[in-house]
Amino acid sequence: MTAHADMLPLTRAGIDTYSQPVVYMHEDCHICRSEGFAAMTRIQIELAGRRVTATLNVVSGADWLGVDTAALSEAAWTGLGASEGALARFSHPEPPASASSIRAKAYGQTLDQAAFAGIIADTLDNRLSDLDLAAFVTACAGDRLTLAETMALTRAMQAAGETLDWGGAQVLDKHCVGGLPGNRTTPIVVAIVAAAGQLIPKTSSRAITSPAGSADTMEVMAPVDLDTRALRRVVEAEGGCVVWGGKLNLSPADDLLIRIERPLDFDSVGQMVASVLSKKAAVGASDVLIDIPVGPSAKVRSAGDAETLKAHLAGVAEAIGLKLAVHVSDGTAPVGRGIGPALEASDVLAVLRGDPDAPADLRARALDLAGLLLDMAQSGVAGRGRDRAAELLDSGAAAAKFMAICEAQGGFREPRRAAHRTPVLAAQSGTITALDNRLIARIAKLAGAPRQQGAGVFLQASVGDRVTAGAPLFEIHAETPGELAYAKDYANSQSQAFAISETP
Amino acid sequence: MTAHADMLPLTRAGIDTYSQPVVYMHEDCHICRSEGFAAMTRIQIELAGRRVTATLNVVSGADWLGVDTAALSEAAWTGLGASEGALARFSHPEPPASASSIRAKAYGQTLDQAAFAGIIADTLDNRLSDLDLAAFVTACAGDRLTLAETMALTRAMQAAGETLDWGGAQVLDKHCVGGLPGNRTTPIVVAIVAAAGQLIPKTSSRAITSPAGSADTMEVMAPVDLDTRALRRVVEAEGGCVVWGGKLNLSPADDLLIRIERPLDFDSVGQMVASVLSKKAAVGASDVLIDIPVGPSAKVRSAGDAETLKAHLAGVAEAIGLKLAVHVSDGTAPVGRGIGPALEASDVLAVLRGDPDAPADLRARALDLAGLLLDMAQSGVAGRGRDRAAELLDSGAAAAKFMAICEAQGGFREPRRAAHRTPVLAAQSGTITALDNRLIARIAKLAGAPRQQGAGVFLQASVGDRVTAGAPLFEIHAETPGELAYAKDYANSQSQAFAISETP
Repeated sequence: MTAHADMLPLTRAGIDTYSQPVVYMHEDCHICRSEGFAAMTRIQIELAGRRVTATLNVVSGADWLGVDTAALSEAAWTGLGASEGALARFSHPEPPASASSIRAKAYGQTLDQAAFAGIIADTLDNRLSDLDLAAFVTACAGDRLTLAETMALTRAMQAAGETLDWGGAQVLDKHCVGGLPGNRTTPIVVAIVAAAGQLIPKTSSRAITSPAGSADTMEVMAPVDLDTRALRRVVEAEGGCVVWGGKLNLSPADDLLIRIERPLDFDSVGQMVASVLSKKAAVGASDVLIDIPVGPSAKVRSAGDAETLKAHLAGVAEAIGLKLAVHVSDGTAPVGRGIGPALEASDVLAVLRGDPDAPADLRARALDLAGLLLDMAQSGVAGRGRDRAAELLDSGAAAAKFMAICEAQGGFREPRRAAHRTPVLAAQSGTITALDNRLIARIAKLAGAPRQQGAGVFLQASVGDRVTAGAPLFEIHAETPGELAYAKDYANSQSQAFAISETP
Repeated sequence: MTAHADMLPLTRAGIDTYSQPVVYMHEDCHICRSEGFAAMTRIQIELAGRRVTATLNVVSGADWLGVDTAALSEAAWTGLGASEGALARFSHPEPPASASSIRAKAYGQTLDQAAFAGIIADTLDNRLSDLDLAAFVTACAGDRLTLAETMALTRAMQAAGETLDWGGAQVLDKHCVGGLPGNRTTPIVVAIVAAAGQLIPKTSSRAITSPAGSADTMEVMAPVDLDTRALRRVVEAEGGCVVWGGKLNLSPADDLLIRIERPLDFDSVGQMVASVLSKKAAVGASDVLIDIPVGPSAKVRSAGDAETLKAHLAGVAEAIGLKLAVHVSDGTAPVGRGIGPALEASDVLAVLRGDPDAPADLRARALDLAGLLLDMAQSGVAGRGRDRAAELLDSGAAAAKFMAICEAQGGFREPRRAAHRTPVLAAQSGTITALDNRLIARIAKLAGAPRQQGAGVFLQASVGDRVTAGAPLFEIHAETPGELAYAKDYANSQSQAFAISETP
């Protein structure tokens, strides 16, 4: 075979296919023809010692791609470290060894530590296709992972990335399973716990389908895009941090599995436990508090489901040497008044600063969680945690600690109010009987959240309130007039976002 | 919401993503921004009453797509019946109802007829993503479909398409589970059975990963791209046909599921049975012969696996009113001498014409199968089928029937010999101990098969033959000098394609 027969120059397609590498080749490309590559074939691409397995899309009748050039999607381009015109080698990939483990699991067999390690390694190396990963997720769905398998998966996920080492010190952490809109307790809890002298290196995620993730909200007030060294510097100086986990190499397979699990919308106790605890173990936590909001529209629907999850969390935590506490909370309603990054940041700051109109529900939840964490602290007195948390909050110590953390992360900034705002009014008089969280979240997203930090929804009434026709229900905030109008049009067409009953 | 806020003009991307619809939108597109669409979001696109659910790829830094235009992959373009500049509506799709059935199956529940019908309908309507379909395939893997579920899936797949009605006449059909290279019995069997006066409306597939499918081989000799009306006309005139099944609406979900099953490479007895029997029921067959070649590199690896498959086939066939016979055959070696459409067609014609150098193994296999089918025929004498088949072949009646069928399908043509040929020689003297079917198939594909009809491999030696160094092992056939050179380079680098032992 001649040296160039399997090589083509690369170009950047400028197409984002999320984390799945795609290669675009012309239908008359000599490699497609000679190798028998057709649409959706998996192709191995090698360039200067780096290797990516990509899915082929075949281009015809379009003039943006030459016959003997291969264009790469963003994920493929980045994965190969490609440059324009670089000559890459194309071949059929060998099937990854872990595909046979996935097949075995699909047939109902039990996998061992090495099998899970192989699946996670091939996931990170992009050698498993999205179909393979969907098969893996399905084969583990429901209760199909034993406790031993869940432990093995957790260890494999942790071991695939970095694990932070805090020299044997007690390290606290918290996690909420399935967020409620506006439930932004994290910055408050971290500030209180760090103010109490504890270590709490908190990593958070950005929104994927919601109007804001904790990292988005924190980013309104301080930089969150820190690497491991910067995270360590902040925590060593201030005891705590709230940073985005995406840039850290902690349980890196988790995001790749979540990308498949989310659209499938399968519950899998084992995978949820492995996802949460592998990240906590990787961040170096010794004591972890898990908040499980329970409600009909929350991720966990019933007290029974919460108990099952709790039992699995406890079993795996013990096996991997984590101390664990679980808090089951009310998951029936949104929390606070703001929905969207800056509006939620304002709620957080109002609680920290003791503003008289700070949302009482957000304050109470943050104190519950901080109190339980302080109960777990070696220096604390069990049962006294919540009182201690309230003292630290009311004295201003937590607020001062929060400002210090923000400065250490790169500098505090006050949330800006969006330039464009419009009220949405009650169409009739009566009593508010329900809020549709999904519709309200959608309005916030249409207004631009989380991409536009100031965008979102500011609630002015809630369940149980009596309103008269024409009274404000909520305010839409946006950073452009177009987005404001678009969100308002949508809000006015969706009167069921606030259900109002005329009976007194 | 204004009327145009969720609309964009369409353009054709000229990108083939196989059957999965993809929509390309610019990152600054107003609909992406306002709806919160991101890479890999599923988007519903509506145009003039037609609807497609497509996966979003986000375009940036490429100048082939304007900011407020949506480009469609071939599958999306065809599915919508789109035209350049047509204004389509974009929205979030409702999750398909059948997704919850797939979830239930993943959790280990048993599905009923209505659930399978829903899954098949949503598969055909493109409302289930590839991830959903991979989850469905996984949830049914191994032995996870009960016999009742397999019956329900078979019925749902059949009912989703057309069923041919032959007015109560006995209709014979055959199917081979997992083909061997060169095992092109179908045209010979159909010719013999039709020459015996029986009805045998045979539909075949094209190659997906092999150097030729039965439809590719038949197409060398006659048109195969017939619609249902043309199929009926041929069968009413001649008793039999060999046409491509792809254009017919018989069990149309089967191809969509196979597209997912093939790369996952899962065995699923239930899905294999449903795939085979739904197509046979749809073509209107009353009596079906299933050939199961068993061998270490065949689809069915052991006699035990063949027995399991046979039991499931028998159970479902009885439930849906099909008479079934199963033939277990030798699956250890390739059949005939040619590999590639025209080379296999030449083998077929040599057998039909009684050429002295016709491959004896292909003739024997065709007679076995035709004989068993004639044993099933109401007009036949059980046990006399094979003798009758040999008479029809040796008398020239089968050859005459084959020519008549080809004429009825649009006209017979003689296979052409490829313009470029080169021998591959034994590197050493000795006895041939094994052929690597996978490597030989690859050489045939590199030479251009099945796209180039004349391309492929012509075997000149086989297992057990003694060869001297420099003697021909096989000949590569290609239609261009470049493909010939490429295939030959590869063949010379893969000496293990023919294992030669020096011990006498």
